[in-house]
Amino acid sequence: MAVYTDITEDDLRDFLTQYDVGELTSYKGIAEGVENSNFLLHTTREPLILTLYEKRVERADLPFFLGLMQHLADRGLSCPLPLPRRDGALLGELSGRPAALISFLEGMWLRKPEAKHCREVGRALAQMHLAGEGFQLTRPNALSLEGWKTLWEKSADRADEVEAGLEEEIGSELAYLDSCWPRDLPFGVIHADLFQDNVFFLGDQLSGLIDFYFACNDMLAYDVAICLNAWCFEKDGSYNLTKGMALLEGYDAVRPLAEPERDALPVLCRGSALRFFLTRLYDWLTTPEGALVVKKDPLEYLRKLRFHRSIASSVEYGLPAEAV
Amino acid sequence: MAVYTDITEDDLRDFLTQYDVGELTSYKGIAEGVENSNFLLHTTREPLILTLYEKRVERADLPFFLGLMQHLADRGLSCPLPLPRRDGALLGELSGRPAALISFLEGMWLRKPEAKHCREVGRALAQMHLAGEGFQLTRPNALSLEGWKTLWEKSADRADEVEAGLEEEIGSELAYLDSCWPRDLPFGVIHADLFQDNVFFLGDQLSGLIDFYFACNDMLAYDVAICLNAWCFEKDGSYNLTKGMALLEGYDAVRPLAEPERDALPVLCRGSALRFFLTRLYDWLTTPEGALVVKKDPLEYLRKLRFHRSIASSVEYGLPAEAV
Repeated sequence: MAVYTDITEDDLRDFLTQYDVGELTSYKGIAEGVENSNFLLHTTREPLILTLYEKRVERADLPFFLGLMQHLADRGLSCPLPLPRRDGALLGELSGRPAALISFLEGMWLRKPEAKHCREVGRALAQMHLAGEGFQLTRPNALSLEGWKTLWEKSADRADEVEAGLEEEIGSELAYLDSCWPRDLPFGVIHADLFQDNVFFLGDQLSGLIDFYFACNDMLAYDVAICLNAWCFEKDGSYNLTKGMALLEGYDAVRPLAEPERDALPVLCRGSALRFFLTRLYDWLTTPEGALVVKKDPLEYLRKLRFHRSIASSVEYGLPAEAV
Repeated sequence: MAVYTDITEDDLRDFLTQYDVGELTSYKGIAEGVENSNFLLHTTREPLILTLYEKRVERADLPFFLGLMQHLADRGLSCPLPLPRRDGALLGELSGRPAALISFLEGMWLRKPEAKHCREVGRALAQMHLAGEGFQLTRPNALSLEGWKTLWEKSADRADEVEAGLEEEIGSELAYLDSCWPRDLPFGVIHADLFQDNVFFLGDQLSGLIDFYFACNDMLAYDVAICLNAWCFEKDGSYNLTKGMALLEGYDAVRPLAEPERDALPVLCRGSALRFFLTRLYDWLTTPEGALVVKKDPLEYLRKLRFHRSIASSVEYGLPAEAV
């Protein structure tokens, strides 16, 4: 939650002359998004989001992200729509950063989601997976098996600082996942980061998905595993079966999981838990003390990982037994 | 720039039932205000600002601040207006904090103000001083001479860590100001913190003043001195006489400074520079490294203080010579 780059009113006004968006009446840095600087703009027409892409986002990936949002919105998914400049480009430059102007999505993210919301999330995730079909650009998942190994190489020798025995435990986990990571499940465009703060609701109605800056091509069921991790655990670390059932039911109603996808859920959940554990661990070990970033606790995902290791069958996540 | 307290949608919805403001459609933490947590709310009617008052703000002062905004707005000053709850109260509670709902003021603060903007600031400051007449509540300035002494006692013995010789220099300055600080200039309600980020413009037109959370009763000309320090120096530390002339001209056109006020400007500027130097120095020495706050450089105000010591007459600030 930060604004890394401030902008002057002159630079902003110059930037906006390239768009057809009415007169600017206010802009405020908003405390959302960990990777980029975001501003909420009011104009004489619609409110807008201005995103400045900071160093952690690869410039070469931006056409994929922005094109994807356009592709998904064109196919009826409720998500922010990048506005084209007068010359048709989706990307401009402001204060020395790549910058895009994006439609403002009304709605609020839920600090305390309930099972009924998890059902909506499952439905929307499946809708996104279907809407993503036919998108021409591709982006490999940099945070899959190979990426985990790279992250682990940078953190392994200090992992025991966080908890004794971690170096061995995570080393074995990586070896296990390396040996049995699924490779032939249905592929497509996945969101890959559909946490609470990336799903907006108006009342109990899901109003849209945001923040596609981790989107990539990977197994669709892996995205389901990410959502189970992100939405179906309680603060005390326990798995909420009711939420799990609702999320999986919502997903299945739009895009039924095939049998191999269902069978793979426990290992996909382990991989997804490891992925967030490893990035958090790396940030934990490398973020300097004075940085304007709230470090997230890697142990939350270690606990989830251990839970998934205890799972004998996908039924335990809440999948209806007869369908497994 | 931070959001210290997050709020859940349920708590916010409960809070809003006490007001007549339409349906909530979005709320975002905004990166403004150093003392409080601020959220920009969209509703089916007007956008609003929600402020949660954090620990640095005295709860007992809130009726003064909120009442003042109401008083000033009633008298035609463009400033945020606290919305009354259905029961008439201006203050409620949310997430364990005192909280107020305040009208949203369109406009942008200027990162690069020019002389024409300084003229508008001078005018608006004088308008505020006139509009403040008749406000019944009072609040002494905790950051005047006595407050400076207290701050200095807490920082003096470490001041030389920031620059060698500071302990002696600031000690003498305080003694000097103590001996000749004016006491009989016109008094009233002052803003006391009218920096760039607290003045909004739409184009070159000033659209309003915000952030009255340092407002208090003190000499009106002291507020002018604060603005000269805040608006009329360049980044390289030089005093911009053109801006100073414009600011003073703008002020004088609405509320002409009396002769004793003009004569006192150099000492008031020294006091005002010392005030911001001391609070920044204290924060510099005491803010822990990991805090989510950007520390402001105290030396900026030391340089301004030294400039004011070199001033022989108020004419040098840009007051027309014949009028002094």
